[in-house]
Amino acid sequence: MKNNFEFQNPTKLIFGKWTIAQLAQELPENEKILVTYGGGSVRQNGVYEQVCQALKGRNYVEFWGIEPNPTVETLRKAIALGKQEKVTYILAVGGGSVIDGTKLISSAIPYNGDAWELVLNSSKIGKMIPFASVLTIPATGSEMNSGAVISNAEKQEKFAFFSSYPKFSILDPTVTFSLPKFQIACGIADTFIHVLEQYLTVIEESPLMDRWAEGIMQTLIELAPKINADKTNYDVMSEFMLCATMALNGFTAMGVTQDWATHLIGHEITALHGTTHGQTLAIVILGTMKQLREQKKAKLLQFGERVFTIVEGTEEQRIDRTIEATEQFFRSIGLATKLKELNIGNETILKIKERFLFRGTRLGECGNVDGYITEEILKKCL
Amino acid sequence: MKNNFEFQNPTKLIFGKWTIAQLAQELPENEKILVTYGGGSVRQNGVYEQVCQALKGRNYVEFWGIEPNPTVETLRKAIALGKQEKVTYILAVGGGSVIDGTKLISSAIPYNGDAWELVLNSSKIGKMIPFASVLTIPATGSEMNSGAVISNAEKQEKFAFFSSYPKFSILDPTVTFSLPKFQIACGIADTFIHVLEQYLTVIEESPLMDRWAEGIMQTLIELAPKINADKTNYDVMSEFMLCATMALNGFTAMGVTQDWATHLIGHEITALHGTTHGQTLAIVILGTMKQLREQKKAKLLQFGERVFTIVEGTEEQRIDRTIEATEQFFRSIGLATKLKELNIGNETILKIKERFLFRGTRLGECGNVDGYITEEILKKCL
Repeated sequence: MKNNFEFQNPTKLIFGKWTIAQLAQELPENEKILVTYGGGSVRQNGVYEQVCQALKGRNYVEFWGIEPNPTVETLRKAIALGKQEKVTYILAVGGGSVIDGTKLISSAIPYNGDAWELVLNSSKIGKMIPFASVLTIPATGSEMNSGAVISNAEKQEKFAFFSSYPKFSILDPTVTFSLPKFQIACGIADTFIHVLEQYLTVIEESPLMDRWAEGIMQTLIELAPKINADKTNYDVMSEFMLCATMALNGFTAMGVTQDWATHLIGHEITALHGTTHGQTLAIVILGTMKQLREQKKAKLLQFGERVFTIVEGTEEQRIDRTIEATEQFFRSIGLATKLKELNIGNETILKIKERFLFRGTRLGECGNVDGYITEEILKKCL
Repeated sequence: MKNNFEFQNPTKLIFGKWTIAQLAQELPENEKILVTYGGGSVRQNGVYEQVCQALKGRNYVEFWGIEPNPTVETLRKAIALGKQEKVTYILAVGGGSVIDGTKLISSAIPYNGDAWELVLNSSKIGKMIPFASVLTIPATGSEMNSGAVISNAEKQEKFAFFSSYPKFSILDPTVTFSLPKFQIACGIADTFIHVLEQYLTVIEESPLMDRWAEGIMQTLIELAPKINADKTNYDVMSEFMLCATMALNGFTAMGVTQDWATHLIGHEITALHGTTHGQTLAIVILGTMKQLREQKKAKLLQFGERVFTIVEGTEEQRIDRTIEATEQFFRSIGLATKLKELNIGNETILKIKERFLFRGTRLGECGNVDGYITEEILKKCL
């Protein structure tokens, strides 16, 4: 472990079958609770009913309609409701978008200013309303970290910010059975790429963190065909749910150099086209691997060997085969791996290039992914 | 992930070179602090000086002399001092024994009764004095968990109990450079066996937890010869220190069936003979593997294949080779692997058998390790 680091993750994880009922014990007494929801799929899959049952006798208001890639425009309404109702606790019920949105709501209720200011500058966050979550989609890891990504529909922008951890998160894998296959595939890709962003940088910083990152990816590769075969197999879906949480809770990130260029380029595409996050990443990561293959060479070779058992051929051949294997993995779960499959072309690439040049953006573990390199990455995704 | 589980580990980890100075910021203001120490090696290696420097201007008292396998007899003195001085915070500076002892001190200062009652019955623990640690020996994982093992010299007994987590723990790997080779070897064995106790039970409960457990063991096996070659290699010793903490902080224990027979048998040997914990475990685990090879067959095969790359031969041959490889690993770091090397024989085995039969002890993942099976395990360790 070459680098100094600090680590703390206080979230209590409550994991397993029929655990939503534990809300009744976990929520502190005498709170005015704001319950935040997405578009309403929880009304179909039984989650809403279980939450209402557990909240019996509690003082709460509901806010509905936090959308995928949650917008500050929607969240401002929830913040206004929270201020008006003087809420003292928030419960997010949904996927990563609902939890991400709730992190902004929690930060902005006590803040005297517009919520977007907090997204642009996390250091303005002061007191926060404590919050917890009931997770319904394994993907973003938001249920056990302090990060969130918020979109601004008006400006067509999407930025990450950091606030605080959920007090607790309830993960009942049975709620994932009703998810559409595409959403599950996007969750698998998001999880896989969270790990890659923390892993595919420099070698020999921490052998243990490497092993743990590889362990999540190996597990996902083993799970994917089983999920394809039966997305109501509890053992398989629960393991996927565990992987998604462990992929972005800091457990594989201790003291390691991280990348995140793929995520930040992906956010731009989503901001401009509304493409699903995991699907977008599955395309961009391949371009990142191709464009930065020299810089990431040693780690690409280790990744290929340990995750895909690619050990034959020259180094260049092994890297080619590793990138192909990654693409094949995404295709095997039904995702597109080219921008043109999403009808995205050069116009978007140039727009993102210009944005990055205008902002002076420099991404990645070497800080060398500027507008020009981003253009090269995205051209390799066409 | 077949089983439901809850997980929460609130300890803040501060890891890296020259981090002891951060005590000054991490310790809360206006506390009356009890600083607990072991036998005095911290006076030689510079740790004591750094701690004193960081505590400048603080209101604190010191307690010296918590021994390896800390005894309730010694800890009662620290508890009396803590009550008398009305301490409000405790800082443990030392290895696992000092931190374990501090957990009992923290629980017993607010308790109106004898501390040994708390060891025998953790449910009697009420309010605790908050505590933190500066770790000097990588081994027990006590710096990031709620467990502790306390000995009773008078009764020649040694029991585990569970209280609370350190608020923070500071891990500066440079402090390990001055450790004796034998102590490092015992720490490696303790770490390795912590993982095995959580791993070597049933298969297919959680593929990810398996991968993470295997990842720690693979890393230790890679590190061991490098540590043998140069125990002042920062990258190597820091990785070992990270492994020791990650081996028993719950990260590899989510929802998995655990064993702990080896530890609990080992505690009896240490209670009777004062043998070093890690050394004792390195002997007993081999007997456990031999005696319970049928029950643990599937996991032994997976362990052999993934950790030692043992894939040829019949299943029985592979298990034989896996147990031999484990023994060889312990011998490679200079540890004994037979009870007779510690001058322990049949008399002790019979004494432990009788204790277990008298107490009605039934250990292990199947609850079948009683006095008779323990006798068989220990005979295989002669």
